[in-house]
Amino acid sequence: MFELDHHPSGRHFLQIPGPSPVPDRILRAMSLPTIDHRGPEFGALGLKILAGLQQVFKTRHPVVVYPSSGTGAWEAALVNALSPGDAVLMVETGHFATLWQKMARRLGLAPEFLSLPGTDAATGLPNAWRHGVRAELIEQRLRADAGHAIKAVCVVHNETSTGATSDIAAVRRAIDAAGHPALLMVDTISGLACTDYRHDEWGVDVTVSGSQKGLMLPPGISFNALSPRALAAAKTARLPRSYWAWDEIVEANRGGYWPYTPNTNLLYGLHESLEMLLGEGLEAVFARHRRWATGVRSAVRAWGLPIQCADRACESPVLTGVVTPDDVDADALRGLIHRRFDLSLGTGLGKVKGRMFRIGHLGDCNDLTLLATLAGCEMGLRLAGVALKDSGVQAAMAHFAATPAGG
Amino acid sequence: MFELDHHPSGRHFLQIPGPSPVPDRILRAMSLPTIDHRGPEFGALGLKILAGLQQVFKTRHPVVVYPSSGTGAWEAALVNALSPGDAVLMVETGHFATLWQKMARRLGLAPEFLSLPGTDAATGLPNAWRHGVRAELIEQRLRADAGHAIKAVCVVHNETSTGATSDIAAVRRAIDAAGHPALLMVDTISGLACTDYRHDEWGVDVTVSGSQKGLMLPPGISFNALSPRALAAAKTARLPRSYWAWDEIVEANRGGYWPYTPNTNLLYGLHESLEMLLGEGLEAVFARHRRWATGVRSAVRAWGLPIQCADRACESPVLTGVVTPDDVDADALRGLIHRRFDLSLGTGLGKVKGRMFRIGHLGDCNDLTLLATLAGCEMGLRLAGVALKDSGVQAAMAHFAATPAGG
Amino acid sequence: MFELDHHPSGRHFLQIPGPSPVPDRILRAMSLPTIDHRGPEFGALGLKILAGLQQVFKTRHPVVVYPSSGTGAWEAALVNALSPGDAVLMVETGHFATLWQKMARRLGLAPEFLSLPGTDAATGLPNAWRHGVRAELIEQRLRADAGHAIKAVCVVHNETSTGATSDIAAVRRAIDAAGHPALLMVDTISGLACTDYRHDEWGVDVTVSGSQKGLMLPPGISFNALSPRALAAAKTARLPRSYWAWDEIVEANRGGYWPYTPNTNLLYGLHESLEMLLGEGLEAVFARHRRWATGVRSAVRAWGLPIQCADRACESPVLTGVVTPDDVDADALRGLIHRRFDLSLGTGLGKVKGRMFRIGHLGDCNDLTLLATLAGCEMGLRLAGVALKDSGVQAAMAHFAATPAGG
Amino acid sequence: MFELDHHPSGRHFLQIPGPSPVPDRILRAMSLPTIDHRGPEFGALGLKILAGLQQVFKTRHPVVVYPSSGTGAWEAALVNALSPGDAVLMVETGHFATLWQKMARRLGLAPEFLSLPGTDAATGLPNAWRHGVRAELIEQRLRADAGHAIKAVCVVHNETSTGATSDIAAVRRAIDAAGHPALLMVDTISGLACTDYRHDEWGVDVTVSGSQKGLMLPPGISFNALSPRALAAAKTARLPRSYWAWDEIVEANRGGYWPYTPNTNLLYGLHESLEMLLGEGLEAVFARHRRWATGVRSAVRAWGLPIQCADRACESPVLTGVVTPDDVDADALRGLIHRRFDLSLGTGLGKVKGRMFRIGHLGDCNDLTLLATLAGCEMGLRLAGVALKDSGVQAAMAHFAATPAGG
Repeated sequence: MFELDHHPSGRHFLQIPGPSPVPDRILRAMSLPTIDHRGPEFGALGLKILAGLQQVFKTRHPVVVYPSSGTGAWEAALVNALSPGDAVLMVETGHFATLWQKMARRLGLAPEFLSLPGTDAATGLPNAWRHGVRAELIEQRLRADAGHAIKAVCVVHNETSTGATSDIAAVRRAIDAAGHPALLMVDTISGLACTDYRHDEWGVDVTVSGSQKGLMLPPGISFNALSPRALAAAKTARLPRSYWAWDEIVEANRGGYWPYTPNTNLLYGLHESLEMLLGEGLEAVFARHRRWATGVRSAVRAWGLPIQCADRACESPVLTGVVTPDDVDADALRGLIHRRFDLSLGTGLGKVKGRMFRIGHLGDCNDLTLLATLAGCEMGLRLAGVALKDSGVQAAMAHFAATPAGG
Repeated sequence: MFELDHHPSGRHFLQIPGPSPVPDRILRAMSLPTIDHRGPEFGALGLKILAGLQQVFKTRHPVVVYPSSGTGAWEAALVNALSPGDAVLMVETGHFATLWQKMARRLGLAPEFLSLPGTDAATGLPNAWRHGVRAELIEQRLRADAGHAIKAVCVVHNETSTGATSDIAAVRRAIDAAGHPALLMVDTISGLACTDYRHDEWGVDVTVSGSQKGLMLPPGISFNALSPRALAAAKTARLPRSYWAWDEIVEANRGGYWPYTPNTNLLYGLHESLEMLLGEGLEAVFARHRRWATGVRSAVRAWGLPIQCADRACESPVLTGVVTPDDVDADALRGLIHRRFDLSLGTGLGKVKGRMFRIGHLGDCNDLTLLATLAGCEMGLRLAGVALKDSGVQAAMAHFAATPAGG
Repeated sequence: MFELDHHPSGRHFLQIPGPSPVPDRILRAMSLPTIDHRGPEFGALGLKILAGLQQVFKTRHPVVVYPSSGTGAWEAALVNALSPGDAVLMVETGHFATLWQKMARRLGLAPEFLSLPGTDAATGLPNAWRHGVRAELIEQRLRADAGHAIKAVCVVHNETSTGATSDIAAVRRAIDAAGHPALLMVDTISGLACTDYRHDEWGVDVTVSGSQKGLMLPPGISFNALSPRALAAAKTARLPRSYWAWDEIVEANRGGYWPYTPNTNLLYGLHESLEMLLGEGLEAVFARHRRWATGVRSAVRAWGLPIQCADRACESPVLTGVVTPDDVDADALRGLIHRRFDLSLGTGLGKVKGRMFRIGHLGDCNDLTLLATLAGCEMGLRLAGVALKDSGVQAAMAHFAATPAGG
Repeated sequence: MFELDHHPSGRHFLQIPGPSPVPDRILRAMSLPTIDHRGPEFGALGLKILAGLQQVFKTRHPVVVYPSSGTGAWEAALVNALSPGDAVLMVETGHFATLWQKMARRLGLAPEFLSLPGTDAATGLPNAWRHGVRAELIEQRLRADAGHAIKAVCVVHNETSTGATSDIAAVRRAIDAAGHPALLMVDTISGLACTDYRHDEWGVDVTVSGSQKGLMLPPGISFNALSPRALAAAKTARLPRSYWAWDEIVEANRGGYWPYTPNTNLLYGLHESLEMLLGEGLEAVFARHRRWATGVRSAVRAWGLPIQCADRACESPVLTGVVTPDDVDADALRGLIHRRFDLSLGTGLGKVKGRMFRIGHLGDCNDLTLLATLAGCEMGLRLAGVALKDSGVQAAMAHFAATPAGG
């Protein structure tokens, strides 16, 4: 069997912002024998999963499941609803928003990339990567688009590369205020099942998500939640598509099946995940993540290090980006922490590479896991010669001790 | 936990031609905790897997792994190497060849679908669905294409819907004989690791495959093995692509990584699969499948029922299609066998729906599994009122007893 | 990882009369992380298991669970209730009855071993090993024991070495008819959860059982179901005991705990087993085993080979012993079948070594598993040169097809 | 599936001094299908395991494996080598030594219980429970036994209830110095594979151990390592025994088999455990435990709380006992920590009940696991109103950061 952890003993601490740690129950379910994806048992499983997903996305409309990474679900959103050369308004919130925009360009769309200008004085990092989406900029841009050339507005709900969570309801209001018919597409790959998300109420047309974050599954399946407007748009959209085509999947899903072979064993895991999350209650799940996030951020503030997300209102309940001092290579630090303390932290991506690391507080996690993580960071920072204002671990302990979960 | 088998006791017999039964060792490996897909352990895993895959595809060139179904790998082959409106020559060998051709059309290509005309007198089934690819028809068609409008020849190596295996080397010779520059694309989703396949030697440009057949994994990852010509073609091909784009994947693979989140836990399974298959030796693996196939077909012949593949030279080592009498609904029969004997058989697809069923002899399987399968079929056929010439189980027992495995 | 099956492909057929094949669900449950055996979760688990066990043993009295093999539960029964030199009446029904009797002697008791005299003309095998317990012999012997020197009557309910199931209610009636105060101890290691067993109604004082047969678990835990009389006897019995002592266990069990470290992960499996068996309903479970047994015996009769149990009324629903011709070494035959067909059959034990083999029809099993098993036997018998009257596989297929399960 | 952890999210921290956390690899191995314990694969497994165990016990003589708890292996040691009424010299080092002594009494032996007199002024706890074995007291007592009435000296190597590790070589020297023929029996249930142990070199006659501590397995198998003198003593010893009898097991073990059904799936786990431990190297394993122990004790000292083991030379590398202030119920504290922080700590047993808790630093564990554990303790102590001198977590972080593992 392959050696998955080169450390001699103990369980690896996977505290990247996804793939998140998978609960033991889900791992066991995924190891059950594969069944016939055209048999009666599979249909029952499919229907149950699809109903559960609607509860998680808070929608009464179809949720399409793909055997693919989240990246595939981005592509699916674009190719189903848009036509070659279509203008799409996207917003630079970080690395993943940037990748989605690159994808749009690669697929022959004409993305326009709204971005906060300038860099932050304190850290030297781009402002756009330290904030959420500014709905007013979207409204302003759409108002200027009198001819309705813009066919879709695409935003990232929870920017996994920075830890900024944007206000999607505000984006909807902005589009409506501008009286603009553009579709609203939202990536909540890392937000779903960690923080509140309301596909129908917020008027989202396509929600993109994935398995390996709040759903606590390994990567390999991804989602498009649809609105009736999105389904209507797909009827006339002209980007070529086949694997991602919504129509055949939505049709086959009526019986709990898929038009091509689904990712059976990951669906076993998804079944367990839905049982766990809906059994606990989504509100309780969200509260857990908020409480963890507050604890982790209290640690970072105690250290005296900047949090990547500069806007308190947008701080993510899912992950926290920690900016390292100018002269400390964050990836060298991460490597040290991995070697010494068997802890994986998220790397700085794109424009913030080497300048920050990310702590995931999602998935199969609890207070002690996070304290262990913070201890690993604190020891690593000290070994790397970073002068810390105070002990972050002590600050987080104070927080967790003072605020009982579910209290 | 979800009830995956509604029968009260015992292990389900999954004898469809894929997803195939997954060995216990692989299922356990897949249940290990997910690791960081950007960490050092993952890179080592990735490199080892990619090297193993080259051995299985018999190629020195890149093998691209997708988090997707096999259907996705079909799409990948087309969108990477072709441009809108390109003519492609495809060959009707059954349901999956037909689906691939539909996909080509849907993606804006201009497929031409070569097909044997007529129906078979004995069964009334289309001749095209009872034979493999006729290389001479391809040669003839390519010779007529003096302007080289045809950009690719696409054939299915092992037609999972019929059980006919085509001679890919002959297709290569036909293209060469015609002096035609078309790329050769081959789907060996269900052939790989069951029967000999030689990507380089046979001059295949893109080989499409998947996890859930001979590799004995659950569905969820798929493959494109490439030739230098395919890689060159991708540089100028103009179908939009992003998720499927070879270039970024091949680049990231140099370090054992992927440009987007890979299907980590299925890759654990793939690692085990490669250890098992290469440890046994591919020749021994192929011999196992041939021996099983001969046993199963001896049973069908004893029953006096037609085998879907009418050409002995093309009979698949992976599955056997069994044609039921005119007045017996093969799907009702399958339903009866499933309910009574906890056995899943493959359904008749497309043009042969209701007229045949398919027995898979691949994956984690052995003589007794196949005898059990044949016993289930034989009891079911009798219960459905089908007059059988003789006992197929006895015929297969005679075969298996007389020919020791590895002998 | 250790290679558990030296065959290159497929799942091993474990058709010995225990350890029986373990359902996938149970294997997965057993692989969950070990918890604190003194924590609150464990207590809840313990109480649930103990309640479920009472339903399976059909008793309102304590069922003691040991971390040990079934052999340990034999010892526990003897050392808790008896004193050095006590006379115990045991009945030779086969190898396991013999081993229990040897154990009694080794522990300083004075076992008397009732046995049917003579050998069977047809097979040359001892009569005692081809029949169940003759209650009338017990009654007769107890009537002769006017001084009540005999302190216990010990019988095996389902003789795993021969496949004869004895009538325990009749033994109770015999003891009562003799007006004898001896305790009744019954080994139903391989009978429990396969065939009806009624600890309370039948007036059994100590029932001995184990995990690896009808409970479909791996070996490692065993049971003593007790009567109030047994508990009373333990107060004065003088054989030394500590590990096996009922008193401390019964006391700790009130809270769902054990006085020493229990076999936690096997108890996870036991929880699943109880859910499965009680969910299906014990009567349905028993009917399944009876139906399987009839099918297997129809095969043996078709072969024309003697069934080890010569008394139809005692034929076991759990296993069938097959007597081989004089000149065929049954163990060589088993070896051949194992090598060629990846099938494990039970060996002949003790006085029938080399003269018979045993087919288990218990555990995670179904019609096709048994037909595969019979096919393996039939091919093996033919390869060993045994002349068979007819095909047993065909006979069993006829049976299974004609009698739907649960019908 | 049973809910094994009542907390809503995250992995439970099992930091009791055994059962220890089981590595994922071992849990997966244990979930593989049960095989025939009389088949050829099992024999190969058995031989490999028995050879590996000899390396771990550092002996060339037989190691007997029982399907039982460690308590069973205590009983096995006594009943195989001793006769009714035999005097045995035992040493009170804590709860487990006391239980072993009670067992000896219960089995009809005449244990004499050597004990340090008095209570500790600072804590009020019995001196005997805060120190290891004083070899000079044993020597003195044996010298007084001119008639050699004492047949065995029984000591606990690593007292799991207190965290004191005794010097076994010194005990051997004491016996030899007294010129006394008593057998030396040692319980290293929680010491084996955590700290150095040398069965042969130290002249131990029977070593008792179990699976659920340093071997990192679930509970359910236990061990007796034997000396030739022990085997000789068993030939004349007269305590009744059958299940525990060495002779039949040693005999059957020559082929890798057992005389009764072994605990197959735990043996799969043992195989993996031996691969892991011997692969890492026992010296490296011991160094890991020592390093952890130093870190944990630095935390307890920083808190200003007494360590249960009052003798630095005897401090256990496996666990640390922490004495709570007089007015703080250690079990109420443990309950609070379990509820709030999903952490299981060891309870105070016997004479120290309610006065201390135990932190295990063994099994599948690493620096961060221990820091998480210490964080849980520290938060709990503060919530319970215990005034701490300083942060133990900070002290342990300083230790772990300053001393790289393997350095």
